[in-house]
Amino acid sequence: MKPISTTTTATASTETQDLTQLMQQLGQQATAAARQLRSASGKAKALALRLMADALTEQKTILQTANELDLQAARAKNLEPAMLERLALSDKAIATMAAGLRQIADMDDPVGQVSQTRSRPNGMQVAQMRVPLGVIGIIYESRPNVTIDAAALCLKSGNATILRGGSEAIHSNLALAAIISQCLAKAGLPEHAVQVVPSTDRAAVGLLVTMTDYVDVIVPRGGKSLIERLSQEATVPLIKHLDGNCHVYVDQHAELDKAHAITLNAKTYRYGICGTMETLLVHHQIAPAFLPAVAQALQAKGVELRGCERSQALVEYIQPASQEDWETEYLAPILAIRIVDDIHQAIEHIGLYSSQHTEAIVTENLSAARQFQIEVDSSSVMVNLPTCFADGFEYGLGAEIGISTNRLHARGPVGLEGLTTYKWVLQGDGQLRGEA
Amino acid sequence: MKPISTTTTATASTETQDLTQLMQQLGQQATAAARQLRSASGKAKALALRLMADALTEQKTILQTANELDLQAARAKNLEPAMLERLALSDKAIATMAAGLRQIADMDDPVGQVSQTRSRPNGMQVAQMRVPLGVIGIIYESRPNVTIDAAALCLKSGNATILRGGSEAIHSNLALAAIISQCLAKAGLPEHAVQVVPSTDRAAVGLLVTMTDYVDVIVPRGGKSLIERLSQEATVPLIKHLDGNCHVYVDQHAELDKAHAITLNAKTYRYGICGTMETLLVHHQIAPAFLPAVAQALQAKGVELRGCERSQALVEYIQPASQEDWETEYLAPILAIRIVDDIHQAIEHIGLYSSQHTEAIVTENLSAARQFQIEVDSSSVMVNLPTCFADGFEYGLGAEIGISTNRLHARGPVGLEGLTTYKWVLQGDGQLRGEA
Repeated sequence: MKPISTTTTATASTETQDLTQLMQQLGQQATAAARQLRSASGKAKALALRLMADALTEQKTILQTANELDLQAARAKNLEPAMLERLALSDKAIATMAAGLRQIADMDDPVGQVSQTRSRPNGMQVAQMRVPLGVIGIIYESRPNVTIDAAALCLKSGNATILRGGSEAIHSNLALAAIISQCLAKAGLPEHAVQVVPSTDRAAVGLLVTMTDYVDVIVPRGGKSLIERLSQEATVPLIKHLDGNCHVYVDQHAELDKAHAITLNAKTYRYGICGTMETLLVHHQIAPAFLPAVAQALQAKGVELRGCERSQALVEYIQPASQEDWETEYLAPILAIRIVDDIHQAIEHIGLYSSQHTEAIVTENLSAARQFQIEVDSSSVMVNLPTCFADGFEYGLGAEIGISTNRLHARGPVGLEGLTTYKWVLQGDGQLRGEA
Repeated sequence: MKPISTTTTATASTETQDLTQLMQQLGQQATAAARQLRSASGKAKALALRLMADALTEQKTILQTANELDLQAARAKNLEPAMLERLALSDKAIATMAAGLRQIADMDDPVGQVSQTRSRPNGMQVAQMRVPLGVIGIIYESRPNVTIDAAALCLKSGNATILRGGSEAIHSNLALAAIISQCLAKAGLPEHAVQVVPSTDRAAVGLLVTMTDYVDVIVPRGGKSLIERLSQEATVPLIKHLDGNCHVYVDQHAELDKAHAITLNAKTYRYGICGTMETLLVHHQIAPAFLPAVAQALQAKGVELRGCERSQALVEYIQPASQEDWETEYLAPILAIRIVDDIHQAIEHIGLYSSQHTEAIVTENLSAARQFQIEVDSSSVMVNLPTCFADGFEYGLGAEIGISTNRLHARGPVGLEGLTTYKWVLQGDGQLRGEA
């Protein structure tokens, strides 16, 4: 699908120029749309989302015809069945997208909410009003449902969006974008509030992440290599999600049954999600009673175990762990295990190897829970819960654009509020500065 | 004071190596201190700040001896009297710093505050806990009092700080740093929680703003050229303050006396602060009644007026404004004036030229006030107040590290909360994901 560059450099340079112009145009249109969206009513935004939900079902045939072009190309490239499934806009996938749109339509609108109101001694009133970030660029891989999810969350939070999906899904994404624009217009909102980059040229990504004049933030949704590359290139701030090397620490004061169930759930709920436990830390006093049984249960589920020497002494089929194991986010049925002297050593291990995503302690001891929750510096710190709970829906955010491993702005699961900022709004009656 | 580079490249490269090593050491020490500070009690931090306040007065002689070295060097360089005054650690300057420290000691500690607590249907509790950002780098110019102010705010919010002040103040800053470290140790806190870069080599700044492994955020305090240079170089996120091209719009429904007083205060409270009005926008219907009198009052205070043709038709001594005038933050007794057709044109002008710092409307009309406050996308939007109120103390933040023109993280005046982030803290009792 990618335009093949021709042999003459003149043409190549024209192409580059065309792409730059195209991206600038998208940027200008998005900025203009963002300006209009600032004062759009919550009612109009919710209406647009409901119209989109209806239109997805009504225009199913158009969508699936476009999707078939992508699927044909994917089959010709011998893409894996799992990839094809993710790419397919089946009836069920369309229904799920429509349901998601209606759910986001029903959520509280974050824009315009006023908080932190205070009256100053001179009588002026100071408050913070939640406002959209502006223009959000979304860079993602093959799933076309992200087009709908991300566009809906950005619209609900009053932002204009430029979406850059995978080239494998370009026909599907453009068909979705056409539906979205129709519905925006019907609801009286700017049709450029949501735009899909119509080019599959990879250079478009480089342009998008450096258009500081037009784009306020980039939310990449994809694997670690994509994020690392974008972190290097981007001059627009990223709300980024790097790796989730998550730990569960089973304290000596843990209840055995609870620790067993939490450990299994944390590892085996799903192997491929970022909240999955990758290293299990066990207090040496509880290890003889806890580890053999949990190791057996994990092995029965097909999880490969790699551990420190002390853990190998307790369970013979634990393979030796190397330094690399402590550092790795497996995203696979493999678990690293270390027996530690005490909570201090557990926290130290986490400080050294964790990616500061999500960690959990299993304990009945209040001081240990408190110490863990204060001293562990990760975006989510849990007590007596499996790390796989790290998710915006589970946290009650209603929806999630991603999980941020940034320290600034939004941290952990990012919902609608993370897609907004605030401005200070002040009301006075002619108060002057420097006069009492 | 700056080490003169020698002629042999070998020595130069050794110097570079030494500086890199020095900065890395500062970074490592800061990171270790930040880890300890995470669980430091509010009591210990407040005690350290009070000890510093006492020590500044007790060790006045030591401070003033060090300061005298800086003053001598500054006099030898024929620095302007205003610069010398800013550099001097007079008895009064020291007393002001001590008072500031005690004020920050008395403020509420933001760290550990828990908010957004919610119970989920499965019984688990989700909340956000405010935590320090980590390591903050402060880059500032000649005033040594910033060393105390910035260090105190960062410490109160639980952060370790690396301070890079101007080379003119190096002796003063190092003497202040020595006092700070003593007091930190006395209060049982890590002495590297506050460090002053001991080198005046400019390359140290370039290293500081790219040490992503050790520094979480940079707060530059200085002129626009410094900030622009750092924005280019920095890979560590900046909480930055660019320019304040601020507007006051006098609506047709303004009360004349209020508009007159607000306009004068907004321009003449101080010419050199970022909240000063740089352009006055006036509704054409009120202009004949409003503009001549306010122009006269401004002229009487020595303010040069530059305006559009319509304003010149009303007031003969208004000079013609050029395109550049609408774009300029004068920071001087100069004011640009434009008569507009309506509120829509005023908001459009602001959208084009404002630096999104602070804008104000003067009006008695509620709809106009509301429209202005929603549609103007600046970090502070005021009704019936002069823009010069843009300041953390005036907003009731208690103290201010700066004013942010960023959209992400902290926006507008940044107090203690802007120097923190949050983590999600979850409490459960063995709930599992994927099970009802």
